[in-house]
Amino acid sequence: MPLNLKTYTEHFTNPLYLESGRILEPYDITYETYGELNDDRSNVIVICHALTGSHHCAGIYDGDKKAGWWDSLIGSAKAVDTDKYFVICTNVIGSCFGSTGPMSPAHPHHNPYRYKFPVVTIKDMVKAQIILFDKLGIHKAHAVIGGSMGGMQALLFAIHYPNFASKIITMATTHATQPWAIAFNKVAQESILKDADFKGGYYDSQTIKENGLSGMAVGRMAGYISFLSYESMKNKFGREYKNTDGLYELFGKFQVELFLEYNGYNFTKWFDPLSYLYITKAINIYDISRGFDSLKEALKKITCELHLISFSNDQLFKNFEMKEISDALQEIGNTNHSYLDIDSNYGHDAFLVEVDKFEKNIKDMLDSK
Amino acid sequence: MPLNLKTYTEHFTNPLYLESGRILEPYDITYETYGELNDDRSNVIVICHALTGSHHCAGIYDGDKKAGWWDSLIGSAKAVDTDKYFVICTNVIGSCFGSTGPMSPAHPHHNPYRYKFPVVTIKDMVKAQIILFDKLGIHKAHAVIGGSMGGMQALLFAIHYPNFASKIITMATTHATQPWAIAFNKVAQESILKDADFKGGYYDSQTIKENGLSGMAVGRMAGYISFLSYESMKNKFGREYKNTDGLYELFGKFQVELFLEYNGYNFTKWFDPLSYLYITKAINIYDISRGFDSLKEALKKITCELHLISFSNDQLFKNFEMKEISDALQEIGNTNHSYLDIDSNYGHDAFLVEVDKFEKNIKDMLDSK
Repeated sequence: MPLNLKTYTEHFTNPLYLESGRILEPYDITYETYGELNDDRSNVIVICHALTGSHHCAGIYDGDKKAGWWDSLIGSAKAVDTDKYFVICTNVIGSCFGSTGPMSPAHPHHNPYRYKFPVVTIKDMVKAQIILFDKLGIHKAHAVIGGSMGGMQALLFAIHYPNFASKIITMATTHATQPWAIAFNKVAQESILKDADFKGGYYDSQTIKENGLSGMAVGRMAGYISFLSYESMKNKFGREYKNTDGLYELFGKFQVELFLEYNGYNFTKWFDPLSYLYITKAINIYDISRGFDSLKEALKKITCELHLISFSNDQLFKNFEMKEISDALQEIGNTNHSYLDIDSNYGHDAFLVEVDKFEKNIKDMLDSK
Repeated sequence: MPLNLKTYTEHFTNPLYLESGRILEPYDITYETYGELNDDRSNVIVICHALTGSHHCAGIYDGDKKAGWWDSLIGSAKAVDTDKYFVICTNVIGSCFGSTGPMSPAHPHHNPYRYKFPVVTIKDMVKAQIILFDKLGIHKAHAVIGGSMGGMQALLFAIHYPNFASKIITMATTHATQPWAIAFNKVAQESILKDADFKGGYYDSQTIKENGLSGMAVGRMAGYISFLSYESMKNKFGREYKNTDGLYELFGKFQVELFLEYNGYNFTKWFDPLSYLYITKAINIYDISRGFDSLKEALKKITCELHLISFSNDQLFKNFEMKEISDALQEIGNTNHSYLDIDSNYGHDAFLVEVDKFEKNIKDMLDSK
C-alpha cells in the first residue's frame, strides 16, 4: 500500500504553558502522517525525533533524493507498518522545520523571537504534541517510539501522560543528561555564540543558509564525534589520506577530516543556529526525575508497557544509562518493561543506521497483544 | 637534595633536516634539567612532553603557583628521583615555549614564520632532541619516559635511535593516530582557523594573550572531552548547576560548562594557535610504521627494554592501542618488554593526575638492572 505521506501545520491560539512558567502564544506545530487512521482510532503510532531531526521521518518528497530519517523502519510492510498503523511525527517546538521556534515571527510584531523565545523543555515538547493530538481527536496511541532526544520524549510521555500510549519504545537515550553529553553540547553552543557571523543572534537566516556558519559547522563536527564511535570511524575512514604526497602539508587532510568538514558545513545550510542553542539547552536540562523525589518516584508513574533499547557502543548516551532505568524499574517492581542492549559498533547513530538489528524487535513489540 | 632546576636555550646554526625533506635553520631548543649529571654520564633520564606541555615538567619557578606538569613523578625521592638521576626535558620544535616554532623569527628577516614554518613530525621532534643531547655530550640515556605525544616520542626514540636509551617507558599513547583522535584535533583546528581574530594566521600574539581567542578556547573544550572521561566528568561535576533558579535561562550553566569555559579561555592566554595547528598536525600524521613495511618491521628495530603503560578509560588513545603494540612485540618474539594497563576512571589525563597508581612501577622499571 502507498505510504500516504501528508504534511500539515496546525495553528494554536491558546497559550502553551511551559515548564518554566512562561507561555508560548500563539504557536504552530508541523507534523506528518503516514497510513490511515482506523475507525476506532486505535492504530496510532507516534514517532519522536532527535535534536536535528524533523517530522519528516519516512518517505521521499517529490524532487528530494533523501528519504525521511527513519524510512528504513517506517513504511509499507516495514517494522512500523504503515499498512496497519497510522503514524504521526511532529516537529518539536523550538525546532526550525515548521513548528514554532526562536526564528518564528513573534506576536504581535512578527519579527523573529530570537532570544525572546522562551526556553522549552523536552516535557514542553511532549505537552505540545499532546495538545495537537487532542485537537486531532487522538486521545490514545498504540505506541510512542523515539531515539536519542526522541527517546527522552517517549519516556516523558510514559511518565507524564501514562494513559496516552499502550506501549512506549525508547532508544539510545538516558534518564538525565550527563556532563559528558553536556560537554559536547557546550562545544557546539560556544562555537556558535562566538562566531562573528552569528552576530550575537541577530543573523539573517538566508545569509547563513547561503554562506554557512563555521561556528555551527565546528559544533556539528564535535557532535559527530559523539554520534559515531572509535570503531565506526576506524572502519569507515581508517588513516586514509586525501593526497599521500601531501602528508607534510599543513592543510593536507585525512578522510575523516573531509567527512567532518563536508557534513559540518552542509549542516549549516539546513539547520538554524538559535534552534540548535534552544534544543541543546532542552537536552542539557532534561532529567525525568525533575518534579519527583527521585528517579524511582518518577518511574512509578509509568503504567504502560515500556521497552528500553540501548546500543553497546553509544558514545553520547552510554548503554548503562538505559540499564539504570531498567534496574530502577526492577527495584520498584515494574514487571511490564523490557531492556535490550543491541551489540553495535556504530555508536549513537546505530538507532538510525542499524535498523536491521532491531526492526524485528520493534515489530514484535508493536504487534504483541 | 634540592631539585637543581635549570633552564637553558641552545642555538643551532646547522640545518635540521626534516622528515618532509624541508629544513629548519637556524633553530633553538629550550630545555630544563634537574639533578646532577654523574661522572660517567650514565644517569640521564629524558622526559618527553605532550601536545600543550613544555620543558617545565618539575619544580616551581619563583613567583609561580603551579609546579611543572609531572612534578608528582619527578623530584627528590620521587619515582624519577633527581637525587639519583639527571633529568632533562626539552620543549619540542613547533611548540611555543622557547624552542623554534611557527611564531619564532624566521631567518633572515626575523618576522615570524607563521605558515612558512615547515610541518614537523614527532620523529623530527625526537631528532632535534638527539642533536641537542649530542651537543651536550650525552650519547646515552638511562631512560626515556613520555605520555601521550610524549609517549609517541619515546616510541620513536626506541625505533629510530635504538642504542640511545637503555629503557623506554611510553604511556597513554598509540602506534598510529586513529581517526577518532584526528576528529578531536579537527574540531580544534577548524575552530582556530575560522576564528576572525586568528586573522588567517596573521594575528598579533600579544593581542591574543590579552583578549583570548574563542576559536582556540572551543578547540580546547573539545580537547578536554578527549582528555577526561564520562566517569571523571560525572564524578567531578555531576549535574550541578550554577543557579538552580536559572534552570530555564538559556545561558544558565552547569558546572561542567563553567569548567570548560574557564579552562578553554584560560588556555588561549598561554598557548599559541599556530603551534596548536602544527603540533596537532604532527600528532595526526604520526605512525611508527611509516618508512617500514609494517608495524612489526618497525618494532623489530627496538633493542632496548620497553615498557608500555595504558589507562583503562583513556578516551583519546584507547588502551587496546597499546595492547596492539604489545601483541605485535610478542608475535615478533620480543622478550624485553612489558605491558601494563592501569585501572583508572580519569581518562587520558590519568597519566598526569593518577601518578600514585603507577609511580611505583616507574621506579621499579628505572631502578631494575
